[in-house]
Formats: sequence, structure tokens, C-alpha cells
Amino acid sequence: MSREIVYDGRRIRVAVASLLRIDGRTATKEIVLHPGAVAILPVVDDEHVCLLRNFRFPLGQTLWEIPAGTLEPGEDVLHAAQRELAEETGYQAADWEMLTAFYPSPGIMDEVLHVFVGSSLTPGPMRLGIDEQMEPQTVALAWVHDGTIRDAKTMIALLLWQSKRL
Amino acid sequence: MSREIVYDGRRIRVAVASLLRIDGRTATKEIVLHPGAVAILPVVDDEHVCLLRNFRFPLGQTLWEIPAGTLEPGEDVLHAAQRELAEETGYQAADWEMLTAFYPSPGIMDEVLHVFVGSSLTPGPMRLGIDEQMEPQTVALAWVHDGTIRDAKTMIALLLWQSKRL
Repeated sequence: MSREIVYDGRRIRVAVASLLRIDGRTATKEIVLHPGAVAILPVVDDEHVCLLRNFRFPLGQTLWEIPAGTLEPGEDVLHAAQRELAEETGYQAADWEMLTAFYPSPGIMDEVLHVFVGSSLTPGPMRLGIDEQMEPQTVALAWVHDGTIRDAKTMIALLLWQSKRL
Repeated sequence: MSREIVYDGRRIRVAVASLLRIDGRTATKEIVLHPGAVAILPVVDDEHVCLLRNFRFPLGQTLWEIPAGTLEPGEDVLHAAQRELAEETGYQAADWEMLTAFYPSPGIMDEVLHVFVGSSLTPGPMRLGIDEQMEPQTVALAWVHDGTIRDAKTMIALLLWQSKRL
């Protein structure tokens, strides 16, 4: 098996891997290499969480999402979660719990996404990047069931957290 | 805003989009272009579903996943779901229900993944591609809660389907 980087970008790289198949021929697989990411479910109370209206360029539309961000090289995942929560919502959370870690697109990308629950929230100032357009809002948990929420990490965080509380 | 294809591959393409920021400077975004996909939750009975042991080259590990596949150009999503279920598990489902459609990685990729529930299953022969290594097995729904299942689409399908039945 060999691997060649065919695109080396700002946030992602693309590799093409060559594999020996069972029949002796060579197959190729495209892999998007990603540094990993964190996401945070900010719990406001038993029935409400804080979500962001997040404009997504790849889709050309605005999604409801939990705060999240890419890991910096060598960064501890809990530290990254605390940083992203503060930057994107202004909140500090006194209580942190690891909820899950999952693969968003394992057929194409090696990204692993670590999800935390942050509760006992204290508000503060947001620190968005100039090209980040986000509006944090408190919304009802039930939104995950009516099709309003279409982002994988947000669906998983809400559904898993709800199921743990049953 | 302009968009340039920087990688044109077998299954994905990568575009770099240039955007005018609020401050008048130009920002660039990397977008992985994907044709979309379907996934199927094959329901065996009230407590069991059929999952695949699926070796994922990007991760170098085997995940438990529901059957899924990339859309062919112009293909109807239900037709694609029926095709993938038969190819990867051998099952034919008499009853089909649309469960959700979601974005696995909206920050990077434009993929939309359509998820169906297939029930009233009849077994038949699998038709795997030579480089597909999958073993369908009947497993307990509860696996989504103990960390065994780490694939986004499989977590969403199981959690959403369980929550609808409560």
C-alpha cells in the first residue's frame, strides 16, 4: 500500500492510497485527512440548549448547530472544547462531561469528532473570527425530532444526551 | 465569490472558494464536493437491526455501520437505498420509510445523506464489489449507547428510530 498527497490545503489534505486487492489488482481510495475536531452541547436547562445559526459555505445555507471547532496541533480536546464554547457563544461552563467521540464521514475522511456536554453556564462576551457569522440562541431540545436540525454532530449530541436522561 | 477545482478525483472533488469578507479582504474556503449518499437501517425485529463490519481505509479500522452507498448520477434516493441494501446485506425490504436527511460534515463537505428504514426483510444473496469487505450481522439496538458504534450515520439512524418509537 502506498499513499500520495494530491492536495495540501489550509485545513485539509487529500491523499490517494493504492491498495492491493484480493484478486491481485490495485485499487485506489481517496482520503481526506483532517486534524480532528471538538463540539460542545451547551445545556441551558432540562429542556433547552444553546445552538448557533451557522452559515455553511459548502451548502450555501444556514444550519442550527452546536458550537464546534477544529483541533489545533497537539491541543487537548477538553481545552479545545472550552476555547470553542467561549469563542462562539460567550459561555463558560462549570461542569464538563465527555458525551461521545465519533466519525462523521469514515468512508472518505479520517476526522474524529469529540463531543462534550457543558453545563452550569455563565454568560460572557463572544470572540468570533471576522469570517464567522454565528448567532447563539436558546432553543428547545425537541427540535431534533421535527427535522429542523440537519447537522450530524448536533443530532448525535441531542439524541444521545436525551437518551441518557431517560 | 469565485470557485476553483483544485482536485478532481474518482469519488470526490475539492474546490477552493474565494469570498469577500465584511472587512473587504478575501477569505478562502476549502469545499469537498460529494454526489450525496443513502443509508438504510435494516430492522430485523423490535430489538435488533442488521449492521455491517466495515473496514474503513481512512481510519485503518473496522466500524459497525448500517449499509450505505454513494448516489449514482441522477439516481432516485429510494432506488439507491434498495440497491445498496440488497448489495451489502442480501436483504430485500417490503416496507420502506424515510427517516431523515442530514449533513455529515457541513463545514467541509456538501454531502447530504438520506436515511431510510427498511423492514419486513427477506434474505437473499449479497453482491459485494471485489474491494468491499463487509460482514452483515444482527445486533442489539442497545449498542449505540455503550460506545460500540462510532459511525455518525449509524448513530443517527439508531437514536432517531429509537426515539420515534418511545
